[in-house]
Amino acid sequence: MNDTPEVAVLRYGHRPGRDDRMTTHVGLTARALGADRVIFPDNAGQSQETVEDITERFGGPFEVELTGQLDATIREWEGSVVHLTMYGERVQDVTGDVRETHREEALLIVVGGEKVPFEVYEEADWNVGVTNQPHSEVAGLAVFLDRLFEGSELERAWKDADQRVIPQERGKRVVDGGDLTEEHGASTNDSGVDGA
Amino acid sequence: MNDTPEVAVLRYGHRPGRDDRMTTHVGLTARALGADRVIFPDNAGQSQETVEDITERFGGPFEVELTGQLDATIREWEGSVVHLTMYGERVQDVTGDVRETHREEALLIVVGGEKVPFEVYEEADWNVGVTNQPHSEVAGLAVFLDRLFEGSELERAWKDADQRVIPQERGKRVVDGGDLTEEHGASTNDSGVDGA
Repeated sequence: MNDTPEVAVLRYGHRPGRDDRMTTHVGLTARALGADRVIFPDNAGQSQETVEDITERFGGPFEVELTGQLDATIREWEGSVVHLTMYGERVQDVTGDVRETHREEALLIVVGGEKVPFEVYEEADWNVGVTNQPHSEVAGLAVFLDRLFEGSELERAWKDADQRVIPQERGKRVVDGGDLTEEHGASTNDSGVDGA
Repeated sequence: MNDTPEVAVLRYGHRPGRDDRMTTHVGLTARALGADRVIFPDNAGQSQETVEDITERFGGPFEVELTGQLDATIREWEGSVVHLTMYGERVQDVTGDVRETHREEALLIVVGGEKVPFEVYEEADWNVGVTNQPHSEVAGLAVFLDRLFEGSELERAWKDADQRVIPQERGKRVVDGGDLTEEHGASTNDSGVDGA
């Protein structure tokens, strides 16, 4: 985000159909909460399309890539690697160290989908649990990013947005990306994602 | 959580089949990150079963309820109501006020699924956006709860757990709920949720 080393999120595993929405939400959460890039398995083209469409409409920069080489991407990553898992060390204990390291080098955050092989636990510099309870890879990613960036991701400015949501006490206000005065009817649903 | 007034999460809307996993993840995230109860629409029985199964195995207290009266539950709530929406006020601006109010009274957090009617925006004491970007209701709920509780939810103790995950630098360690010495083979997958 901005002038710091890159943060990329890698979604490990994807079952087309069954995982489309979760994978899409991993990508959208990565974008909204300050990551620079998401890497999906190469069978997740539908999720790629949705995240790129949102970036087109709501701004960037944010990149979406597909790869057939998940393991090699992790193994050959130039920087440090965090693997989010309910079996890992407590997020409240290790995020400070991760943040410190990220000042100097790029960070890859691996988010499990289907069963993650033991090699990923070994390749990771940190295995991190956002609680040691079973919940959601999307929730874990969200809390981890918010803590990594200490809330600064919420102040991020978006470039090349077609539309922009203006915070409201009640109701919906959406304006042109470069124009804070013109008001549009809000045609998106509440998640803003149609067919995700 | 613990001795504070109740926090309940209400999932507004559910399409069986299509939304099963997202609704389940809303419930599991509510449980893992410090809410006391989740309320699902009455057609979300499958998600209820999964969340109750996890509570049985990993501990509580945590309640899962179904209701056919989503609107009445919001309208008649005795306490304050937060509605999470990308159109709302910025989470970094309003969470302090919500936290202050929650010291005195119960809090209902409404999480949208399908299109949320305008009445919900009106009934809510706060409409809150975890960013004004489209991403994921699960991610929004997770960040909101972590900020509401200021991380204290991560220290929560669980009662009546059959099993407990012990944080590890590498690999998986799962022990009996009341026994921190006996080790089990980890039979859960990485999300801990089979068939969710």
